[in-house]
Amino acid sequence: MDASEYRRRGKEMVDYVADYLEGIEGRPVYPNVEPGYLRPLIPTEAPQEPEAFEDVINDLEKIIMPGVTHWHSPYFFAYFPTASSYPSLIADMLCGAIGCIGFSWAASPACTELETVMMDWLGKMLQLPEEFLAGTAGEGGGVIQGSASEATLVALLAARTKVTRRLQAASPELTQAAIMEKLVAYFSDQVVATLGTTSCCSFDNLLEVGPICKKEDMWLHIDSAYAGSAFICPEFRHLLNGVEFADSFNFNPHKWLLVNFDCSAMWVKKRTDLTGAFKLDPVYLKHSHQDSGLITDYRHWQIPLGRRFRSLKLWFVFRMLGVKGLQAHIRKHVQLAHMFESLVRQDSRFEICAEVTMGLVCFRLKGSNQLNEALLQRINNARKIHLVPCHLRDKFVLRFAICSRMVESAHVQFAWEHIRELGEDVLRAEKE
Amino acid sequence: MDASEYRRRGKEMVDYVADYLEGIEGRPVYPNVEPGYLRPLIPTEAPQEPEAFEDVINDLEKIIMPGVTHWHSPYFFAYFPTASSYPSLIADMLCGAIGCIGFSWAASPACTELETVMMDWLGKMLQLPEEFLAGTAGEGGGVIQGSASEATLVALLAARTKVTRRLQAASPELTQAAIMEKLVAYFSDQVVATLGTTSCCSFDNLLEVGPICKKEDMWLHIDSAYAGSAFICPEFRHLLNGVEFADSFNFNPHKWLLVNFDCSAMWVKKRTDLTGAFKLDPVYLKHSHQDSGLITDYRHWQIPLGRRFRSLKLWFVFRMLGVKGLQAHIRKHVQLAHMFESLVRQDSRFEICAEVTMGLVCFRLKGSNQLNEALLQRINNARKIHLVPCHLRDKFVLRFAICSRMVESAHVQFAWEHIRELGEDVLRAEKE
Repeated sequence: MDASEYRRRGKEMVDYVADYLEGIEGRPVYPNVEPGYLRPLIPTEAPQEPEAFEDVINDLEKIIMPGVTHWHSPYFFAYFPTASSYPSLIADMLCGAIGCIGFSWAASPACTELETVMMDWLGKMLQLPEEFLAGTAGEGGGVIQGSASEATLVALLAARTKVTRRLQAASPELTQAAIMEKLVAYFSDQVVATLGTTSCCSFDNLLEVGPICKKEDMWLHIDSAYAGSAFICPEFRHLLNGVEFADSFNFNPHKWLLVNFDCSAMWVKKRTDLTGAFKLDPVYLKHSHQDSGLITDYRHWQIPLGRRFRSLKLWFVFRMLGVKGLQAHIRKHVQLAHMFESLVRQDSRFEICAEVTMGLVCFRLKGSNQLNEALLQRINNARKIHLVPCHLRDKFVLRFAICSRMVESAHVQFAWEHIRELGEDVLRAEKE
Repeated sequence: MDASEYRRRGKEMVDYVADYLEGIEGRPVYPNVEPGYLRPLIPTEAPQEPEAFEDVINDLEKIIMPGVTHWHSPYFFAYFPTASSYPSLIADMLCGAIGCIGFSWAASPACTELETVMMDWLGKMLQLPEEFLAGTAGEGGGVIQGSASEATLVALLAARTKVTRRLQAASPELTQAAIMEKLVAYFSDQVVATLGTTSCCSFDNLLEVGPICKKEDMWLHIDSAYAGSAFICPEFRHLLNGVEFADSFNFNPHKWLLVNFDCSAMWVKKRTDLTGAFKLDPVYLKHSHQDSGLITDYRHWQIPLGRRFRSLKLWFVFRMLGVKGLQAHIRKHVQLAHMFESLVRQDSRFEICAEVTMGLVCFRLKGSNQLNEALLQRINNARKIHLVPCHLRDKFVLRFAICSRMVESAHVQFAWEHIRELGEDVLRAEKE
């Protein structure tokens, strides 16, 4: 495929994507396939000779789409949202074309520098303490990780390195293994200090945890993968109070801030805590500026060596939506969650199982777990909407998460009517 | 931005990308900017109100492009290649639009199943032993990781879990810390068993290492991040002999197989070695098929929870190039490396420092390290081509890596003339 065919095919793909997203409401949100459905539909080996682009595109609707769970359907209420927006999709095209690997400043200065500045923009949108920003006199800064898991792992390894060095300095006679035995990591049952848990979007109280960590000289990492995006709205910012006690903080713009996966934002108060833990300096990665103290080599901030030009997505999304556009997106989702909550509360056969703060409603039929398992099964078998469950204190609970950028009150209304009807069926079946 | 604006702007971006790649030869391969160049060029905060698309696009040439190291320029000979091709760019657009997060089979069956089958296709292209494939009676299979670092980490953790369990079963009185003290990981100075090192693309002899690992019941992980792609050519496949002794094998199609970053291919002989180490099963990720033994939940194969629909890139690239097209790409790069090698050998002032097997030539001026450092500095300051160095047995060596998909013999010829001239300057300066 040469450039002129790419111009033609790329534009066809733009139309395919627009058609897909405009028509997504008409597709069943959850696929009706059995495990192993795909293998018999395609050859057992790669072709020796090139095939035509049309053949690949034709296979999309025949082979791929029937097996896709449509995360951006307005009838998708499962897990948590994964972000998508047109500016982000366009930025990703550019990111792919530039295709630089930004492991050091020299490997592509714009890639590193835009990331640092975008992380400052985002930090300011969240009103993070200045210590977390790079463009200040402080020692902090932000980095884009691939996922919250990676951010947590990076924080853990950095904390371990820091404490190990402190112990080794204080007691040089200790072996590495003896030190390892002494180290303790405290977790809640949702991992590390969490703002917005996956099960029910509950919040740890940082103003209680923070001072204890500070007093005991413990590394405090805060994970707010889903809910973090909401802190750009002043009315939710209080939930982040106490972040000033943290050493590192992380949330995923790729969940709720309209930036396509992957983009997990992480800040630290001391850059050297990360670079001290991960520093890797073979001569082929050295460059003339690296010891100047002026530059950032992001390979020292993360597990992988390679990294894409992901900050382009932040830049496009921030500029084309503006802070107000992003706030409006968050507020709409929270409002739709409260709308669903009030619909549930109007039906005395159902109950709300956790406080609704963000875009997640945990609810259930009053009654046994079995009853609710049956309800969920009916919902997902009907394939009109898609939900997943959670356990809250031994109770089987249904999670209704506002996910799609395109979801409107009519979809929520429809979902509730549908759930209510299936609930009636389940209750009727129980009585029979 | 609504769908109709996306149709317009997306197509403009297709043209921008095509213009960029068609005109990349005309841009200086290495940017002429100082650290911190970008921050003063953009506002200190995100805009409150949306901006126009034109404003963002206009800033690309003003702010971003002047700071980009152009990895796909035919004058880029630094590091190793990072792959790019039009079919891959188009597949990535689709991957972004579908935007599913494939952590479990149910989260998007097509995402999981296409990945499994594409990893089989690719494994067959490499003539991997059947034990590594999923579509056989065996216990193996492939997975796409984000990077070779992640693949290595996954292999290490899986190996550690496996050995720890074996030791615990044999000696239940041992504490976790005592077991940790006993564990040993053997590395060469390039990390794990390596086919195609970064410095000079040398190869470990698997037929020596393999039987020892087997006899000692040690986990053998083979990393062939760059060179692995070449094993699709029968004439290079012998370098992979001995892979039958490995427990896990990894290489990066995103380096040399025309699949855009990120796409790191990893195979294991026993799926349960990975799933045993990483299994994570909260109820919101459970689904009805997961205990059937029929399905793959890739979240148990990797560090992060989230994952993109990356196999679409493999599918598009394999089909639109065919195995023969991919082989031709590899062979062209190897041939250009040998062409450069022979140009160097014709000039008695230069020497070749390592056997040229793939697309990398390590060379230097006969003489001091200082002389060669001066030469490299002149080359990179001139910004006509871009190289990075390495150390081989205390010698400072220049690496000439064939990288761009668009590089032709004329570019290699030009590069050599340029290097030779600068070499003369350096030698003359030394004499003065």
